[in-house]
Amino acid sequence: MTGNKSPESAAIRLSLYLRHLRKMKKERVISSEELARFIGTSGARVRKDLCYFGQFGTTGKGYLVRELQEEISKILGLNRVWDIALVGVGKLGSALLGYDGFRKSGFNIRIGFDVKSNIIGKKIVGVPVYHPYQIPKMIRERKIRMGIVAVPAKAAQESIDLFVISGVEAILNFSPIAVVAPSYVKLMQADLTNQLEIMSYSIINKAKKETQTRIS
Amino acid sequence: MTGNKSPESAAIRLSLYLRHLRKMKKERVISSEELARFIGTSGARVRKDLCYFGQFGTTGKGYLVRELQEEISKILGLNRVWDIALVGVGKLGSALLGYDGFRKSGFNIRIGFDVKSNIIGKKIVGVPVYHPYQIPKMIRERKIRMGIVAVPAKAAQESIDLFVISGVEAILNFSPIAVVAPSYVKLMQADLTNQLEIMSYSIINKAKKETQTRIS
Repeated sequence: MTGNKSPESAAIRLSLYLRHLRKMKKERVISSEELARFIGTSGARVRKDLCYFGQFGTTGKGYLVRELQEEISKILGLNRVWDIALVGVGKLGSALLGYDGFRKSGFNIRIGFDVKSNIIGKKIVGVPVYHPYQIPKMIRERKIRMGIVAVPAKAAQESIDLFVISGVEAILNFSPIAVVAPSYVKLMQADLTNQLEIMSYSIINKAKKETQTRIS
Repeated sequence: MTGNKSPESAAIRLSLYLRHLRKMKKERVISSEELARFIGTSGARVRKDLCYFGQFGTTGKGYLVRELQEEISKILGLNRVWDIALVGVGKLGSALLGYDGFRKSGFNIRIGFDVKSNIIGKKIVGVPVYHPYQIPKMIRERKIRMGIVAVPAKAAQESIDLFVISGVEAILNFSPIAVVAPSYVKLMQADLTNQLEIMSYSIINKAKKETQTRIS
């Protein structure tokens, strides 16, 4: 089983393709090679990713940006609005509530939970905040399927457990701690350091290249 | 040029390998196949990624977790502490200042910049905040090479320009807007929606599978 061909690896790449398509003129045509270059893969890989979910474009003629964008959105389930529940309305949680990028992409944090009595019953960035003991009731009533966890590390697992028993199907955990969920729940670890590590690598590598240039 | 073999794609995977190695017992041995499974790639790809930077382990015997972790850290430039400058000390910025995951991985936000007069001259989560006009002076004095931008969209490009003229070599932009930097600066777009898109895909796909099961 090579994961490069797994549906999820393809989904990750589709999400990256989409990011670039969104910035482009809608009525132009793009080749698989051009799209590949944006995310550092091969044209063959792009064509395979798209074939996996059906056939788009005409062989040798490329894809119309608008159509490809619509198709990929559909594959990823982005042709709809997702309601999201957030547990932990502290600094990070409030920042996520105000994050425009979510709403732009169809992700709508509709409800917040926090143990801090001074914000329970209030609205933060327009979103009502409840005590976590109401998680199962509120989430079932509103049929919310996605959750975000932005609580301190020691409360992360408990928050995830509450989401799981409430029927949440996919959870994004921002607490920098290892957590678990049953296999039927998609649990993702938000990764803010990953990109800093790439930046570190990039600076280090550039410095090395410059040294080599000076030597030769 | 297939990007799968490019140094940066490898760096991204190395960062993911590291994430899993950190959770493991240090004195055990791990095979390339086992490491590959964590990130959904192949054992051959893992071996190639590691070969790219030199030879580790003994053929057929796997890698000692502790040694592999140290080697990958060194390749990524993580065997040191990186000082970081942050522009935008609002909700998201303050959340990043308090984010434990950064410090744990050797990323230290040392200085903040913001236009809000009520926080200039103060410390937020222990980090001093200055007016952005001081960016060039302060960053050069402290020889800071990494920057994070967490300002409102309309101020993002200006903040990046200030970092660039100050000699910052790598920038992570959290504003959900397209920005540019010269090619000698590594500019990365923080991507909080990417993981929600994978979650969306995962829910949609699970629903499809269940439907198929009911039909058959």
